[in-house]
Amino acid sequence: MASRYWSDLVTGLDPYVPGEQPKIANLVKLNTNENPFGPSPRVLEAIRAATGDNLRLYPPPDADSLKAAIAAYHGVARDQVFVGNGSDEVLAHLFQAFFSGKGTILFPDVTYSFYPVYCGLYGIPFETVSLAGDFSLRVEDYQRPNGGIIFPNPNAPTGVALPLEQVEALVAANPDSLVVVDEAYVDFGAETAIPLVARHPNLLVVQTLSKSRSLAGLRVGFAIGQRDLIEGLERVKNSFNSYPLDQLAIAGAVASFADETYFQNSRRGVIANREQLRSGLEDRGFAVLPSCANFLFARHGRLGGAELAAKLRERGVVVRHFNRPRIDPFLRITVGTAEQQQRLLEALDDILP
Amino acid sequence: MASRYWSDLVTGLDPYVPGEQPKIANLVKLNTNENPFGPSPRVLEAIRAATGDNLRLYPPPDADSLKAAIAAYHGVARDQVFVGNGSDEVLAHLFQAFFSGKGTILFPDVTYSFYPVYCGLYGIPFETVSLAGDFSLRVEDYQRPNGGIIFPNPNAPTGVALPLEQVEALVAANPDSLVVVDEAYVDFGAETAIPLVARHPNLLVVQTLSKSRSLAGLRVGFAIGQRDLIEGLERVKNSFNSYPLDQLAIAGAVASFADETYFQNSRRGVIANREQLRSGLEDRGFAVLPSCANFLFARHGRLGGAELAAKLRERGVVVRHFNRPRIDPFLRITVGTAEQQQRLLEALDDILP
Repeated sequence: MASRYWSDLVTGLDPYVPGEQPKIANLVKLNTNENPFGPSPRVLEAIRAATGDNLRLYPPPDADSLKAAIAAYHGVARDQVFVGNGSDEVLAHLFQAFFSGKGTILFPDVTYSFYPVYCGLYGIPFETVSLAGDFSLRVEDYQRPNGGIIFPNPNAPTGVALPLEQVEALVAANPDSLVVVDEAYVDFGAETAIPLVARHPNLLVVQTLSKSRSLAGLRVGFAIGQRDLIEGLERVKNSFNSYPLDQLAIAGAVASFADETYFQNSRRGVIANREQLRSGLEDRGFAVLPSCANFLFARHGRLGGAELAAKLRERGVVVRHFNRPRIDPFLRITVGTAEQQQRLLEALDDILP
Repeated sequence: MASRYWSDLVTGLDPYVPGEQPKIANLVKLNTNENPFGPSPRVLEAIRAATGDNLRLYPPPDADSLKAAIAAYHGVARDQVFVGNGSDEVLAHLFQAFFSGKGTILFPDVTYSFYPVYCGLYGIPFETVSLAGDFSLRVEDYQRPNGGIIFPNPNAPTGVALPLEQVEALVAANPDSLVVVDEAYVDFGAETAIPLVARHPNLLVVQTLSKSRSLAGLRVGFAIGQRDLIEGLERVKNSFNSYPLDQLAIAGAVASFADETYFQNSRRGVIANREQLRSGLEDRGFAVLPSCANFLFARHGRLGGAELAAKLRERGVVVRHFNRPRIDPFLRITVGTAEQQQRLLEALDDILP
């Protein structure tokens, strides 16, 4: 029901639809790319320690302790780090800060479906660039006039990664445009572009603590780029919300960067489970794209994606299906625990003839 | 340092500057209107209970449990409630959802200084309407063509409240415009306009848990209005960030609404301290505006606001001074604990001849 009090902008929006968060117990939830392992115990300790009377106070508006932790971890200066309420908020701000009024921006035809939504929110024209038949990104396709470029690496929902030298070639070929590399899943096997920031003023790298650091419930994301890019983001953020990160999110995120052993073990555990899941799916007649993420993108030889997703759901297993061109036959299946993956494979054995 | 990669919008922004969060220990911090008392112990318990492996999961994107708690508390339906990452985020979204492209909006000349910043972010023209000489809002001044109206009640940084029947008169006189009542401080002695929502489709009421519920560090705010207004806000929010409230903020906020006794005691304690502080200031030659908030707006008979703020700071007491027309002579002093207020008054005794 539209309203006379809405702005025209609101009427024209086509909001993003996140993966379902079902409330049914005992469901095998492999639909929103959450980490099957919990966060580091040190993160939980840090949050508990921060839970006290100090919550009456505003958080530090620039989350300095977290910026310092991220800067030290990634070997950049503190003023090369921007933090936000999940990487989705970081993305929203950067669309407004760098893509608004710059001309037509480019992103892959198969990619994170929030990008066109941000374009709608800020009135940014976009064109999609077709991925190759194997769902890889071809750098030469981005050598044409544009107002900016964004792509995930590894890509979502395919999991396919672009090698670092090709990322750099794309950035170097577009010196007049900002190029954003959205690395939500990078820790599961791809190479981060953060080391390229020092020599490319037009590169901004976005990451999140939601996936590899198991903190989707805490909402922390960040961007790394040269100082003037970070300052542009700060200007937008400080015109929107002074304190987007609460005290507990800051405390937990700082602790996460201090527990490298846990992070590495968790990351490796996800990768190991992913490769087990891949075998299990291939054994059952699926073609699975090469994945550097914490999910697999797979199509079955005979059954369609929508049908399979529905039948899995009937058996208590939730995966994600996108009813969109090119990817309609696929399922996006999050890497789970060994037990969750076993239940998925058993459900498939029950479904498949 | 501006950048070629910035949008024109970013270059033109004049971001909000929040009150300082000084890191010096033992400072008497009376500058950002935080509650001197901590949050309810039940809130802290609820947060600790929510601190576990489940942080690996995304929060429920519509924070249903919190919407249900707020709806029950305020006697409205769940789909008449919108929640956000602090009331600042709620305000940002509503400027874009309802004021963008609607013409020139109106707000008082002395008011929350984030309003013109939001206008800059979304390209919304505004005019300020002068408060009366006693800093009260005159409803008749808002009876002219406008694209929307927003004002805090009680007003900030003055603390002066508008009686409910005058709020309703203003809303009724502007049926073609959305009227937003920003009630960040309402629980300290003003009357909420929430009961008016049922009969006024053009009224949106915004509140926060930062002040009267002592949860500035948790970042939770909300809006209440008729369904189509809430749906407009949801459309913007779901085009910006699916999960603005983290799991811990949701858990803590829900628990806050369940501890009515603590809330009432805390609220009354702040009001009692405020009236003590008022006497102390008046005894020392200050003229103090009538306040329904958790702060006092006071000017000294002889010393200027900037000078007094600087001298207090030298003595370890931080208050807020706004270097702006009309209010330059004033200090905005947050209500503190009895001990903090005593230290402020002693510092004043030391400064004043």
